[in-house]
Amino acid sequence: MNRKTFNELLKAKWDENKFVCIGLDSDYEKIPQVVKEKASVDEAVFLFNKGIIDATYDLVCAYKPQVAFYEAYGVDGYKALEETVKYLHQTYPDIPVISDAKRADIATTNEGYTKAIFDRMGFDAVTVNPYLGKEALEPFLKYGDKGIIILVKTSNPGAGEFQDLKVDGKPLHQIVAKHVASDWNYNNNCGVVVGATYPEELKKVREIIGDLPILVPGIGTQGGDLEATLKNGLDSNKQGLIISSSRGIIFASGGEDFAEAARREAEKLNDQIKEALNEGV
Amino acid sequence: MNRKTFNELLKAKWDENKFVCIGLDSDYEKIPQVVKEKASVDEAVFLFNKGIIDATYDLVCAYKPQVAFYEAYGVDGYKALEETVKYLHQTYPDIPVISDAKRADIATTNEGYTKAIFDRMGFDAVTVNPYLGKEALEPFLKYGDKGIIILVKTSNPGAGEFQDLKVDGKPLHQIVAKHVASDWNYNNNCGVVVGATYPEELKKVREIIGDLPILVPGIGTQGGDLEATLKNGLDSNKQGLIISSSRGIIFASGGEDFAEAARREAEKLNDQIKEALNEGV
Repeated sequence: MNRKTFNELLKAKWDENKFVCIGLDSDYEKIPQVVKEKASVDEAVFLFNKGIIDATYDLVCAYKPQVAFYEAYGVDGYKALEETVKYLHQTYPDIPVISDAKRADIATTNEGYTKAIFDRMGFDAVTVNPYLGKEALEPFLKYGDKGIIILVKTSNPGAGEFQDLKVDGKPLHQIVAKHVASDWNYNNNCGVVVGATYPEELKKVREIIGDLPILVPGIGTQGGDLEATLKNGLDSNKQGLIISSSRGIIFASGGEDFAEAARREAEKLNDQIKEALNEGV
Repeated sequence: MNRKTFNELLKAKWDENKFVCIGLDSDYEKIPQVVKEKASVDEAVFLFNKGIIDATYDLVCAYKPQVAFYEAYGVDGYKALEETVKYLHQTYPDIPVISDAKRADIATTNEGYTKAIFDRMGFDAVTVNPYLGKEALEPFLKYGDKGIIILVKTSNPGAGEFQDLKVDGKPLHQIVAKHVASDWNYNNNCGVVVGATYPEELKKVREIIGDLPILVPGIGTQGGDLEATLKNGLDSNKQGLIISSSRGIIFASGGEDFAEAARREAEKLNDQIKEALNEGV
């Protein structure tokens, strides 16, 4: 397989001025009835994703299935997830696909996860949790062609409980960012997660990590601030952001027009980004 | 379903002086050839687990499948995991089954994970990662009948990179333990993970959390210290520990006698624990 590296795929999309990542949080319960009627669970989830993808592929820098919503349907969910990644790779091979799995375990166990996420499913990148440290995450970090995107400051309201605790006068999440940039990135394959709901923290993290990619969830339903995200998060090339929206796009309509509605929302976000960039944020 | 709560199941096992938890890290690659020969992937993994379980059920306080090794085989792995939990619940309904998944995401996503792990698969407990904070983990914590076992100090060599950073003079993992005991445990369903490889840290954590259950991985292959674990980890009732060994037990033999060999290793660990307890650790 001659698939490009995550960084190459991402950079090419950024060069086309594409920064929107659509989160495929495709909870079967929320999928429009019109899709469910004609299919089994795994088919319905796949067909829903295919509808969204075919309607938005020219607008995005990445897709990001949220693994939890597939696991919730067991074997059916797993099948739908595999089919979705396969479809994306075959039909739109220039679009990177991120597994939003937030995995982390001891090293021998992480080898099970890399086998699942990279070797088997073929994802281009994965989100991971830093709590167990670099030594545990080595099985991920050693995949030089894949993106390893480490949670730094998550988008949820209670993210600060531990992430903002002060270590030597600095919040823990800044320490994590520093370790990633200075020590974990030896394969030049690391990125970080900072929620759009924390634009000030985003600014500090960008200062710490230089031009590493930042995945920014929390735009849309979670209420993150797009303009502040761009202002504080862009790298030295006015790129460097994967701006992720999920429910606000994929569940924009619960009817037959779900794919068109998703496109409208993705276009709207895309236009807002372009406008802000043109205004020189 | 009239299944007892995780705490009830666990307490009953402790009252029988059972503290060993067998980690079902059932990597298909490592399963004896004799099992693989006569079965498909999902059947082989299930039959391997069934062999181990039937040979050890009277020795353990819990089983703990490590989810990564099942995910690594996709739909087949998922089927084997579901079958294993189902078999345990039906055949040995008094043994609690812990999903070693180390999950954590924002709250809406965690609802996908609880649906998968509790509603669908029927696990009695799950391991979770604290990095996103209590607010994110509420979907887990609100399951009052399930055990929510939070990573505090993990067993891996590099665990201290963030877990030992000093916050107000105390290592971060002690702060996590304190939050769990004082704020997260409102349903009396929390436990924590401390690796047997860190017996001094275990002592401190036990002081902080009172009689909450501690899952202690790292005995066996990882080289954790059993005597120090008991000395430092037992609660005020001389109970409170789930002492987990995985590879050292389940892969004790790669031949036809894999189940008997697993029983021998589990018995050995059990005997060592009993001896230490009788000597009054």
